[in-house]
Formats: sequence, structure tokens, C-alpha cells
Amino acid sequence: MPVFLNSTDPDFEAAFTTLLNAKREDSPDVDAIVADIIADVRARGDAAVLELTAKFDRLDLTTDRLRIMDAEIEAEAAKVTPDVRAALELAADRIKAYHAKQLPEDQQWTDDAGATLGWRWTPVSAAGLYVPGGLASYPSSVLMNAIPAKVAGVGRLAITVPTPDGILNPAVLLAAKLSGVDEIYRIGGAQAIAALAYGTNTIAPVDKITGPGNAFVAAAKRRVFGKVGIDMIAGPSEILVIADADNDPDWIALDLLSQAEHDESAQSLLITTDAAFGKAVAQAVDKRLETLERRAIAGASWRDFGAVITVPDLDVAAALSDRIAPEHLELCVADPNALSEKITHAGAIFLGQWTPEAIGDYIGGPNHVLPTARSARFSSGLSVMDFVKRTTLAQMTPDALRAIGPGAEALATSESLEAHGLSVTARLQALNR
Amino acid sequence: MPVFLNSTDPDFEAAFTTLLNAKREDSPDVDAIVADIIADVRARGDAAVLELTAKFDRLDLTTDRLRIMDAEIEAEAAKVTPDVRAALELAADRIKAYHAKQLPEDQQWTDDAGATLGWRWTPVSAAGLYVPGGLASYPSSVLMNAIPAKVAGVGRLAITVPTPDGILNPAVLLAAKLSGVDEIYRIGGAQAIAALAYGTNTIAPVDKITGPGNAFVAAAKRRVFGKVGIDMIAGPSEILVIADADNDPDWIALDLLSQAEHDESAQSLLITTDAAFGKAVAQAVDKRLETLERRAIAGASWRDFGAVITVPDLDVAAALSDRIAPEHLELCVADPNALSEKITHAGAIFLGQWTPEAIGDYIGGPNHVLPTARSARFSSGLSVMDFVKRTTLAQMTPDALRAIGPGAEALATSESLEAHGLSVTARLQALNR
Repeated sequence: MPVFLNSTDPDFEAAFTTLLNAKREDSPDVDAIVADIIADVRARGDAAVLELTAKFDRLDLTTDRLRIMDAEIEAEAAKVTPDVRAALELAADRIKAYHAKQLPEDQQWTDDAGATLGWRWTPVSAAGLYVPGGLASYPSSVLMNAIPAKVAGVGRLAITVPTPDGILNPAVLLAAKLSGVDEIYRIGGAQAIAALAYGTNTIAPVDKITGPGNAFVAAAKRRVFGKVGIDMIAGPSEILVIADADNDPDWIALDLLSQAEHDESAQSLLITTDAAFGKAVAQAVDKRLETLERRAIAGASWRDFGAVITVPDLDVAAALSDRIAPEHLELCVADPNALSEKITHAGAIFLGQWTPEAIGDYIGGPNHVLPTARSARFSSGLSVMDFVKRTTLAQMTPDALRAIGPGAEALATSESLEAHGLSVTARLQALNR
Repeated sequence: MPVFLNSTDPDFEAAFTTLLNAKREDSPDVDAIVADIIADVRARGDAAVLELTAKFDRLDLTTDRLRIMDAEIEAEAAKVTPDVRAALELAADRIKAYHAKQLPEDQQWTDDAGATLGWRWTPVSAAGLYVPGGLASYPSSVLMNAIPAKVAGVGRLAITVPTPDGILNPAVLLAAKLSGVDEIYRIGGAQAIAALAYGTNTIAPVDKITGPGNAFVAAAKRRVFGKVGIDMIAGPSEILVIADADNDPDWIALDLLSQAEHDESAQSLLITTDAAFGKAVAQAVDKRLETLERRAIAGASWRDFGAVITVPDLDVAAALSDRIAPEHLELCVADPNALSEKITHAGAIFLGQWTPEAIGDYIGGPNHVLPTARSARFSSGLSVMDFVKRTTLAQMTPDALRAIGPGAEALATSESLEAHGLSVTARLQALNR
């Protein structure tokens, strides 16, 4: 049974805090193992990668088979059914169109002092994308990670995807092809992250690594952070639906279950202005759980981490939502745009009852890599911005230096950084000669 | 003696690679100590903070004195000399004006399928800024960290600054006041980071922590990353000057020394098209080192990590610069804008001989918190963007769902995520009834 709460109950605050702080993930401490793997790959390169792949993926490779070459990609991609291919193509087009609007603009201007200032954006030269293998190997995640990189202008985009027992995922390879991925390697785990970060004879190093992964991958990304850039370390997925009584309980139940079926640690929350509606949704969840393929996973998630919270009005709902800072937020209310304006912290908002969160997972256009575990308080979903960086620009004229140079001299002196001041002084003296 | 290299020498590549890979920083492994401090602050809150402050800063406080109150700030700030106050005010105004142009815009549009898409930016609610104490307590860093946060719209901005033996830095307090900082606490080290991340009875937790610090502070930021957002972990400062022979060697020498004087681990590099000019700069450095106040530090940095590289032309200079991906890049050449166009990886570019890097440190307008240790390949300097986050928006109409919903169903099925597909199917069925 999920938790049923009412925001007007005297013990609500304690129960809600418990819900917020519930630890939903067992993070096994794999850091020592990962440190060894990274050191091994740095020291022995391809040889270490091959050995670790044989050990963890039961796959004996040679260096010339680390990379999946075009002919093999084509042959596998041809196995994808026409409807899935069409869906991937539509999704790729829509994701491209959305992310193209994120490209930031350069700026340059000259101010009153005569200083020309500005900045310029440039793409990361080379990026690596980790794609999980096995069951959680999702073609949609390939699109969501690879397309922003390519839209940003990343010149070289490499994917690593483990293929346990040598089994390839045709849809993943097709998604990579549709996204313009340049290289695909059949390796995974911490060894893949190490190879991307430090390079081997076969795999050139990249500058940035993104993509989801298990505890080993997450620990490896943390360790190589600084040597390369990384995206966020994602936690279990979560959804908050805010719904009034004017909804079909079954639709809302399915929306809740579409998070719950990801992972036993996923969290599905409903905030409603109508307690009876909340009960009806919970009943609809139970009914769907009778037949759902992934009912064991979805049922455990709903039982352990689900909650139905009744509130007196939507203002209270918005306030609670901001404390949750949900990854996915569905607003199934009469005026979703008005409610949306009251929300400050959320990874993605789905407005109205015709926008199930699954649309956003696949085909809406916005990215599905979103901040989890309340990190929407301070971070954003994956975007083109993750694959560009800004260089600031400044150019003084003699007049500009005359105008603002003395200020720099005064501050340098106050910070006891003499050479800083002298570098301005020497130029000002030349101007006054 | 710094290294003298010539890009046309046969052994250049090896020597340049050695230069690139030189480990410039001893990172003492303080992680275990920091883990204990964070656990202690989480468990005992203010009591732990007070004890650790007594131990490390030789300062006995009570909870009511943790925060530096307005009267004390005013009294200290009044001690700042008029020229330094005027310089801080000018710098604050210019930094505000520059960063105001970074505020990102919301977007919303409706596409051909009838889907309304977009995103919205909102500020981080509460941010904490770590300011080092003692010698490296720089008012300019307060401006550079605090102003972007306030321009972004951060509601609550708290500073922690250790005050060993109780000694306050008037210019730091004035800079905080000018930047609109809301709270200042006289604590430092890992205990300050822990207090900001987890909160105590006296200090409310924040969502994001930025600012420079020593190895303990850096390790603590790494540890609380995820609970809160952090900025980059900064390494020692570095400058690359690309100069032709048409420059005053003394000016270039002072620019190199203004990085070298920061830290024995700082790195100052010169790339020049004229070997004789390179020698003249090195001589000018030696001459300035005879009298410079911080000659011990600057001399060690120049000796251990400095280099003068001669190249045949500016194209080679640009290519080497991109491999260095310098934090600060000065282009002292006849057409700095043309050369700038050839540069892809740099934190900040200073164009022309009238733009010494010290202008950027203090008063130019762009931020001086910049990516070090080659991380300009994948990251940017501090900006307003570090204090905002994006919420993506999507709203389907029935027609839009009819148009793209089947694609989502196909992909959900291919990923074996049944509830995802059913959440779309249930709605499409209702539309077809």
C-alpha cells in the first residue's frame, strides 16, 4: 500500500518530511573496485578493457572488434520493425527541432568606457555517451543524449554500450545511426568510462561523458570528473501528478505506473484536491497491477514509495511540489498553465490531461534526462548547453584602460597582488608619457 | 629557469606533452578527515561547527555570534579606504552590467503537430558562497561569485568566511554588502561547506555552493555534490600569452607574473613568433623578480612551470593554445580578433596589448572564476547560468496526441515499458470513442 496523506492532518508535516527523506536507492560502495578498474585501464589500455569485457560481459574480443563497424550497424539496424523505425525517426526529428532552439547566441558590445566585451560559445570537440546494456538498453536514451550533442556541434561523438554474451540491440544501433553518432564500442562498466576519459590505443579520449549507468558507471563518472566533464549522476526516476477530480482515474494510474515500472526504487506521487479521487486512482493502480507485465517491479515501487496526498487547494499543491522538486511533474487540472506559473522547481512539466509523461519520455521533443532526487532545485535536464562552453571576451582601448585601469590598480594593491597592479600601471605610464 | 621550446624542434612534441601533463598540484588526501567533519556537522549541527571553528580558527564563538550582523559589517566596511571603496563600486557596477546580459530567455512555441513546447528559467532559491580566509581572502572573488547569483535572482545568498583569530577583512565585508549578500557567517573549512549543504539550527541549508577554497573545502564540495549543486573544483591559476615581437617585453613579463604571483603551482606560458622577443620577456621577468613583493612565490612558479614557446606563425600558436585550453588567454598581436577566431578552447580571452589579464581579474566585467587545468575543453567560467535552472514544458492537444502518440506507443512497446504505452493508448482510445 502506498501512503495516504492529507495536508491538513496534524501529523502531515512529519509524514511528508519522512516521504521526502526516504532513501530510495541502495548505493553499494563500489568505489574501491572502480578505482582499480580505472587505474588498470590507464596503465594497460586496450588489454585491460578486453580482459574486463571478457570477465563482466562474457565476451572475448580483440582490439579490432572493440568498435562496431558500419556494416554490422547497418545489418543490425535493418532488423528494426518498420513501425519502430518510423517512431524513432519521428522522435529524432522532434528532439532535433526542440534542441535546435537551445543553441545559445554569441554576444559582443562596447560599453561607455570604450571596453568591448562579450562572449562566444563553442562546442565540446569530442563527447562520449554511455548506453547501458541488457534490459535497460533504451534507444530513446540514445536519441536524448546524442542529439543534443550533435545539435551543439560536437565533432566526434562516441558511444559505449556493453553487449553481454555478444547480444546487440538493433534499436539502439539504429537510434545511434539516426542521431549521427560517429563511433560505437561494445564495452561497458567502469572500464568503458575509463577508456572514454583516458583513451586507449583503439579509443581516443573524449572531453565530456554523459549517459545513465549502474552504480559502477556512476562511481567511475564521479572519479573521472575534472579530467573530463560529466552530466549529472542520475538517481531513480520519479513522477508527481497533481490532479483535480475531473480526470479519468485510470489515466492517472497509468501515468503513475509508467514511472513505477522503471525500477523498484522509482517513486510515483499523486497530489489531489479530492480525497475520493485519490482513492479511485489507487484502486485503478491496483487493478492495472493485476495484469501489467512489469507488475512485480511497478508494484514494489508503488507499495514502498508511492503516496497519495490530499490538499485543500492547488496553492498548497504547488507549495508541496516545490518541496519535492520532482523530476517529472504532470498538471492534470482545469488550468494547467496557471498552476505551472506557481511552480519553481521541476525538471519537466507536462501540462494537461492530454500530455502523459510517456510523451516526454519518447517523442515530445524536450529531453528525458532530467534532474532526480530533488536536484531540480539547482540543476536542469540535459540540453545543448551541456555540450557547449563559453569563452568570455574583453578588449580595452587606451581610453578604456585610462578609465577603469586605476580601479584595477587599487584592488590589486588591496589584495597585495603587486604584479597584477603593475601590469596595468606599466601600460598607463606609457600612455602618459 | 622556465622551459624554452621551439615548435619546429624534433623533440618538441614530447616536451610539449610533458608540459601539458605536468602535475602542478599536490592534492593531499584529506577525504577521510572531511568525511568525518561532514558527518559530525550533520549529527551535531551548530555544536560541531563551533568546536571545529575553535580548533581550526582559534576562535571561540557562540551560536549567536556565528553570523556577522549588519552593525559589525557596517563598522568594518567603513574602514575601507575611499579609493578601494570606489574601485569596488566601479567593479560591482561593471560586473553587474556584464552579467545582466547573461540572463537566459524563456521560450514557448506551438509546432506543426499542435504540441506547445518550451522551457522556463527560474533562479536557485538559496545559494552559499565560500570565501577563503587569511591571505587569499579576496574581495574581488566575493563580487565575482555573489553578483551572478544576485543577478540570477537568488533569493537568499549566504557567505561563509573563516576569520582565523577573529580577524575580519573589511574589503570582503564591503564587497559582500555591495553585492547584496544576505547573510555572512564567520566559519570556514569543510565544516562551513557541511553547514551550508545540510544546515544547522543557526544556518539554513542552501541549494547550491560556489567559491574557491583549499583542499579541505574542495573535498567537502565533492562530497556534498548531489545534495546541493556545486561549481567547478578550481585548480591553480594559469595564463597563456600569445605575443608577436611588437610588444613591450616588460608588459608581457608583468602579465605572466600576475598569474605566477598567485601560487607556486600557477602556470605562466608565453607563445611567441619571435624567439628573441621570448628571451627578452624572460629577461624582463627576471628583472621584475628582483623586486616583486611576492617574488618567492612568483619565482618558484615561473621556474617550475613557466615556458616560452617559439612558433613559426600564429596558426601554430592557435593550435597549441587549444591543446593547452588555457584559463586565461592574452592575444597581444596585431589583429587579436582574427587570432581569437582560431581559438576554440579558452576560459577567457583578453584581446590586444591594452587588455592585461588583471583587468579581467578585477574590473573588466566578465567573471574571473574560470575553468583551469584544461577544463575549458568542456566547461565555462562562472555565470548567471550557474544560478538558474530550466524547467521544460510540453502540452499536447487531442490532435497532437493523435499525431505523435502512436510513435510513443511503438517505442514503449519496443522498450518493454508497457505502462508507458498504455498511458497513451488509454487516452487515444477515449478520443476514438
